[in-house]
Amino acid sequence: MYSGGYTGKILRVNLTSKTAQEEKLPLAVAKDFIGGAGLGMKYLFDEVKPGTDALGPDNKLIFAPGPFTGTSIPCASRMAVVGKSPLTGAVGNALTGGYFPAELKFAGWDAVIVEGKAEKPTWVSIKDSSVRFHDAGSLWGTMTFDCQQMIKDNLNDQNTRIICIGPAGERLSKIACIINERRAAGRKGLGAVMGSKNLKAIAVRGTGKVAITSEEKYRAARSEMLKAFKESPVLYSAFSPAGTPMVVDLTGALGILSAKNWSATGEFVPVDQLGLDAQNTRKIGKEHCYDCPVGCSQMKLAKTGPYAGILTEGPEFETIYSFGTQTGVVNLDAVIAADRLADELGLDSMSAGVTIGFAMELFERGILTPADTGGIDLKFGNDQAMMMVLRMMAFREGIGDLLADGTRVAAMKIGKGSEKYAMHIKGLELPAYDVRGAKAHGLNYATAYTGADHNRGYAFQEIFGIPVPWEVDRLSIEGKGKLTKWNQDVRAATCDCATMCAFMLDTALPATSTQNTSALLEAVTGLIFTPDEIQKVGERLNNLAKVFNIREGFTRTDDTFPERLMTEPLKDGASKGQVITKDDLKKMLDEYYTERGWDTQTGVPTRAKLEELGLSTAADLLGV
Amino acid sequence: MYSGGYTGKILRVNLTSKTAQEEKLPLAVAKDFIGGAGLGMKYLFDEVKPGTDALGPDNKLIFAPGPFTGTSIPCASRMAVVGKSPLTGAVGNALTGGYFPAELKFAGWDAVIVEGKAEKPTWVSIKDSSVRFHDAGSLWGTMTFDCQQMIKDNLNDQNTRIICIGPAGERLSKIACIINERRAAGRKGLGAVMGSKNLKAIAVRGTGKVAITSEEKYRAARSEMLKAFKESPVLYSAFSPAGTPMVVDLTGALGILSAKNWSATGEFVPVDQLGLDAQNTRKIGKEHCYDCPVGCSQMKLAKTGPYAGILTEGPEFETIYSFGTQTGVVNLDAVIAADRLADELGLDSMSAGVTIGFAMELFERGILTPADTGGIDLKFGNDQAMMMVLRMMAFREGIGDLLADGTRVAAMKIGKGSEKYAMHIKGLELPAYDVRGAKAHGLNYATAYTGADHNRGYAFQEIFGIPVPWEVDRLSIEGKGKLTKWNQDVRAATCDCATMCAFMLDTALPATSTQNTSALLEAVTGLIFTPDEIQKVGERLNNLAKVFNIREGFTRTDDTFPERLMTEPLKDGASKGQVITKDDLKKMLDEYYTERGWDTQTGVPTRAKLEELGLSTAADLLGV
Repeated sequence: MYSGGYTGKILRVNLTSKTAQEEKLPLAVAKDFIGGAGLGMKYLFDEVKPGTDALGPDNKLIFAPGPFTGTSIPCASRMAVVGKSPLTGAVGNALTGGYFPAELKFAGWDAVIVEGKAEKPTWVSIKDSSVRFHDAGSLWGTMTFDCQQMIKDNLNDQNTRIICIGPAGERLSKIACIINERRAAGRKGLGAVMGSKNLKAIAVRGTGKVAITSEEKYRAARSEMLKAFKESPVLYSAFSPAGTPMVVDLTGALGILSAKNWSATGEFVPVDQLGLDAQNTRKIGKEHCYDCPVGCSQMKLAKTGPYAGILTEGPEFETIYSFGTQTGVVNLDAVIAADRLADELGLDSMSAGVTIGFAMELFERGILTPADTGGIDLKFGNDQAMMMVLRMMAFREGIGDLLADGTRVAAMKIGKGSEKYAMHIKGLELPAYDVRGAKAHGLNYATAYTGADHNRGYAFQEIFGIPVPWEVDRLSIEGKGKLTKWNQDVRAATCDCATMCAFMLDTALPATSTQNTSALLEAVTGLIFTPDEIQKVGERLNNLAKVFNIREGFTRTDDTFPERLMTEPLKDGASKGQVITKDDLKKMLDEYYTERGWDTQTGVPTRAKLEELGLSTAADLLGV
Repeated sequence: MYSGGYTGKILRVNLTSKTAQEEKLPLAVAKDFIGGAGLGMKYLFDEVKPGTDALGPDNKLIFAPGPFTGTSIPCASRMAVVGKSPLTGAVGNALTGGYFPAELKFAGWDAVIVEGKAEKPTWVSIKDSSVRFHDAGSLWGTMTFDCQQMIKDNLNDQNTRIICIGPAGERLSKIACIINERRAAGRKGLGAVMGSKNLKAIAVRGTGKVAITSEEKYRAARSEMLKAFKESPVLYSAFSPAGTPMVVDLTGALGILSAKNWSATGEFVPVDQLGLDAQNTRKIGKEHCYDCPVGCSQMKLAKTGPYAGILTEGPEFETIYSFGTQTGVVNLDAVIAADRLADELGLDSMSAGVTIGFAMELFERGILTPADTGGIDLKFGNDQAMMMVLRMMAFREGIGDLLADGTRVAAMKIGKGSEKYAMHIKGLELPAYDVRGAKAHGLNYATAYTGADHNRGYAFQEIFGIPVPWEVDRLSIEGKGKLTKWNQDVRAATCDCATMCAFMLDTALPATSTQNTSALLEAVTGLIFTPDEIQKVGERLNNLAKVFNIREGFTRTDDTFPERLMTEPLKDGASKGQVITKDDLKKMLDEYYTERGWDTQTGVPTRAKLEELGLSTAADLLGV
């Protein structure tokens, strides 16, 4: 199986002892998990014991680009961040692009494992094999953009690439994210894990190159990929100039653009105010991740009212939902401003917006009162209230403190039946797609090991009508178990482990992503996988993560939906009348577990399945 | 007089024709004006006709570093920006430090003359001798920090140095400034001149070095200077760690820290809230200009309330006055936030704060009402009102539009006797030093060719008690004419023409700045001047600027003070009872004109004086 020169290196940074050491990436790990989130999962599973406090010194944070990151392969700029999530208590991972991941590879590292806890606020700089620990006392409290500039100035190197946290991560907000440039490793509160370790930032600069095992195969595989890009009916023509905001119109038309804390999907479709045409009135440019020929990232400038002059990279579709439709705010300039502010504060724009929308519904229902909000009129659509509360969340002021840890914690603190309106699964706030009208999305939300996470097994079939691996009826629950397994495993392998950009795969390579990854892996690393073996890597990740979660106490009952989705049918729009009943969910879960080779009753992986995947140690741990 | 290799080059950029051409800096200009503001004045005088609209295409903007900028001579990082001021109608100049000026020299340019008007928003990039014109349509509307980052990304060069305007300059606010990094060429509305030319930004990158005529003399002169720095009793021990905020305490103690639109100096001395100790509670670091061993610039981070997390380089002493004591705002975090916001918007923090303080007094007196302010409670001390109005000024919204052009224009529009409270001279808002208790400061404000400008002839003798060139009683008007001439000429020569940093000269070389400049000039350029000849260059600049202003219609009556300073004695504090009466002013002006060799009655330079300075053409123009 192995024919080449994949000699990965891991940097282990211990903040307690202020030491850094180099380790070899075991070839077996590379073979089993490729890299990225798979690699991170392997180390997390092996090194973080059950019951570890996600915000304690024993949690670890693994930053892992993929094998192609830093090469000239398009759409390979990304990196996974993996740790135990303080938001869900389950596996937490988040992927980000930009330039930091490639720079980490130039410095020679396939992953950085951060462990322990610094005594005082600290930032770490990595220059090739040299690692330095710096006092971050003065940077503590800074916003993320200023923080990055201050570090560049401190190192006297404007080309240093930085990841950092903002005030939210410092204050251990469970929805705090990690920012690099104007991008985020957004979800599951991994910014709080950095904060809990007193780690403000990591700066990296590399002078090396990523080795290619076979230049000839590399050129061929890369050409094949670029050819597929060119042949895509949407990639360059539609997706590149529009980016993800094109999905606002699409989901609006399908009646699955969630709105007003999921109380008004279908009815409330502000495509005129927040859709693609509206977005384009604010577009002033594009940004590219490292060596990306597409550049889907849109720079937008707010033009009116108190938001005039505020620039953001984004808002992406999910943020247009979270700060827009979810909160009932149809002022696009406010959405732009909130996106920028969330990035500056280091708050996940998705969870933050969903949490504010949740609070708005509670306010409208009288469960939260002006006494709770400090007089802020927190009704749906009040953009200035949204901006105020967003800032207060990062600083844990007043109502902001109540909301700083996301919907689940807020509901627990508020009580009064508020959990009913808390739109999360396993603690992770729901993405935009209203699953009542997109059933595979629903099953993925319910079963993804990270909680309600569209990135784990995105059902592009239901949104774009692409008949890969087969044709799908978005409203039906039939066969969604098998589809969701396919989606989750393929995506885990290609996007999470090989850290390829999902947007490109969906638009240009939906049917060939495992073949593509296979060809690239051989060319770059010399490791030979069949496409099926690639997919198996994804399955391995999904199984190992599942075992991790079971070890943490998760059961079948956690694979579920917020009450609302199972009892309130959509009232209007193209998915009118749709709902996912408890029985629908049961049927889908049964099929899904069966397809996965897991115990159909409990959803626990069987020994046979785990052994098939080479995870017998995990089976031992489970006692199956 | 000339012994070496001073072969300056000027870049002339015409925005109308989108052309750039190289010109030789005539040796005669270098001899007469050295560089910087002197050079700019020469070109402005020769090329901008009387009566030219400062915001029309025929105004010019000259960016001119000094002969030492870009060398390793300490405190030589600066550059003058010169044009006709839209705020005063007189000569406008502003100096700035940082890294842009040195980079301009590395690119080979002693000055850039910008003329004409671009048809559409444009930015210009200079890389060594290559000049490119770029469409700035997408950058128009951006804040200054984002604008700089967007340009770096566009050029794919994070080491490019940029000057730019913000929303205020685009909207031709007459108090708009020009920003480079986090610094400003602040005063006299030169940002509006850029805006009027549709010029959003200039980016520069140079790969060359500044030539040194005599390395040996250079080393000797530089050593001499560094020795004087080390021997200074205050430079490294007090000024470097504190920066200009140390002057808050000093002027507070002297009872000359102006407050509440100059109605409360002496009484209102919030040293506890805004003084040096308070400032240091927010200090998180320092910044240096190019190759500066001192680094007086203080990075401060707001910590409380809605301002928490806001970072600024500053606030400098004058901004602590303008957004602090002048507006009665004693919330230091608000002052920090206002400083940052002014920089982002591209508004001169001094004029903006003074104008808001002016509006606050009018509001308290009922001359402005809530109907005028759109309901904003614009009373002294209301920090949130200050922040709102500041933003509105840059965007010309509501009350902001009324105030966007500074106190003089606002008073004209408001009427109702408001001019009485408009604290400006020749249209330029007053700096912090209350001249009733510092008479040479007063005479300098009244006579400086740029309006009320502490930078033209700063009377350090009155503030720091330094007995150079002689001992001075700050409360007396005696001899202040002679002193002001000395201050203005020495400073014009060393700081404005040779573009040396005034802070260093004041603290380390007050008695030897002309000798120092003379030695450095010979070492770097081969041009030989005696110290007296250096001072003469300053006198030449002051005379030529005076003639320019007379040509524009200025007369002796413009060399005056706001009414308040001549009629209301200071009510409390260490300068209690002090005032500058009309008679005091007359006496000081008479002495000043006489010392200058100008007509004592009219304040017009005599032919004899102009011919002595080699300015007979100017005498011809005046008809004297």
